[in-house]
Amino acid sequence: MSGRLIAIGVGPGDPELMTLKAIRALAQADVVAYFGKAGNGSNARATAAPHLRPGVAELPLAYPVTTEIPSGEPAYRDAIRAFYDGAAGQIAAELDTGRTVAVLAEGDPLFYGSYMHLHVRLSPRYACEIVAGVTGMSGCWSAAETPIAQGNDVFTVLSGLLPEDELARRLGEADAAVIMKLGRHLPKVRRALCSANRLERAIYVERGTMADAVVMPLAEKRDDGAPYFAVVLVPGWEARR
Amino acid sequence: MSGRLIAIGVGPGDPELMTLKAIRALAQADVVAYFGKAGNGSNARATAAPHLRPGVAELPLAYPVTTEIPSGEPAYRDAIRAFYDGAAGQIAAELDTGRTVAVLAEGDPLFYGSYMHLHVRLSPRYACEIVAGVTGMSGCWSAAETPIAQGNDVFTVLSGLLPEDELARRLGEADAAVIMKLGRHLPKVRRALCSANRLERAIYVERGTMADAVVMPLAEKRDDGAPYFAVVLVPGWEARR
Repeated sequence: MSGRLIAIGVGPGDPELMTLKAIRALAQADVVAYFGKAGNGSNARATAAPHLRPGVAELPLAYPVTTEIPSGEPAYRDAIRAFYDGAAGQIAAELDTGRTVAVLAEGDPLFYGSYMHLHVRLSPRYACEIVAGVTGMSGCWSAAETPIAQGNDVFTVLSGLLPEDELARRLGEADAAVIMKLGRHLPKVRRALCSANRLERAIYVERGTMADAVVMPLAEKRDDGAPYFAVVLVPGWEARR
Repeated sequence: MSGRLIAIGVGPGDPELMTLKAIRALAQADVVAYFGKAGNGSNARATAAPHLRPGVAELPLAYPVTTEIPSGEPAYRDAIRAFYDGAAGQIAAELDTGRTVAVLAEGDPLFYGSYMHLHVRLSPRYACEIVAGVTGMSGCWSAAETPIAQGNDVFTVLSGLLPEDELARRLGEADAAVIMKLGRHLPKVRRALCSANRLERAIYVERGTMADAVVMPLAEKRDDGAPYFAVVLVPGWEARR
């Protein structure tokens, strides 16, 4: 009899923002798998560390590339596809022996998470369970104490990798927005916010739920670079009472 | 010295999806406040019930109206505004005596939550803390085991109250979407999804994380009515590997 696959959302980084369900699922796992960049460790594992059973088997899954190759290029796609195939194979081998495998996911497993690549490969063959988590964006607007969307607001999540004109158009059409994957795209994102007349309300957040979080108006943040996981919040709800 | 105001996201309904931080914050509260409809109880309180300190003071805040009056009408706005003013006043009175007041919020406090109306009234005068929670939508797509958005997908949250042509246009422009506040708007939402060529991928979810959850293709759901809190998921990520 095959083991069970459990995707565990560990939340935005503060171990206190893990759910009871995540902690209990972790306690049942025979094997704990997590993604990370080789040599950099895994954010998801660091978040879950206080709740890992001592001596539990670990299965680190190290991305072969992250931002070294543009994600649109065939070389990137081929490397990433082979990596996910291999990772799914390693997990399947554990499940075939009857072990329960937990895959740790930053934020929520099914919202822009790497786990989704395993899910499409493994869920047709194995019993899966998803433990929802607090998203990174919720962590960010909570740290910034910024009400983001209310009532019938249209709320949109955008990637910093989108072209400038598309970003500007979509920002202009949304009541509230979050822009992810900032990194080296910060100057372009700033120009798009400016075109859409949204720069004044934009808030820059770095390491949202960590002790060294940075929260400031984007207008005051210099273009000298942002981490890949920094976000910009554009609140839709302007103190309407 | 004034007390502290803590907004606690209790997640989508399963008490196991509360975070450690929420449970610890609840244990520190002198007064626990929550919204609900008079006579119907409070979903947030029901979720948090296993973690309430016996004998803790409770402050129920009962909406004077919900869907009896259309939310665009002045009578609705006046009643709701007076209600939030009164609720903020009641909480301020507790804070002024030095008590710590926790306000329970379904899902995440700053994402379409009633708490936001208290936050704008009280945060200028009192120390506030926000405890992020798992959103109702994360609970729904996790229950449905439906990967929702990936990579550079544009993800949009829409209200079922929007006009049909606006819904159709916005659905056509998003890679992934969630439509909230279905209720009696289900037939209109279905027509909009059909116009946008998204009906086939749409998934209907009712009471996402509860034991009696309903998950089905929207195409198979009859138009005989949906609860206000049912949602439609439109996954953007179609098993791209």
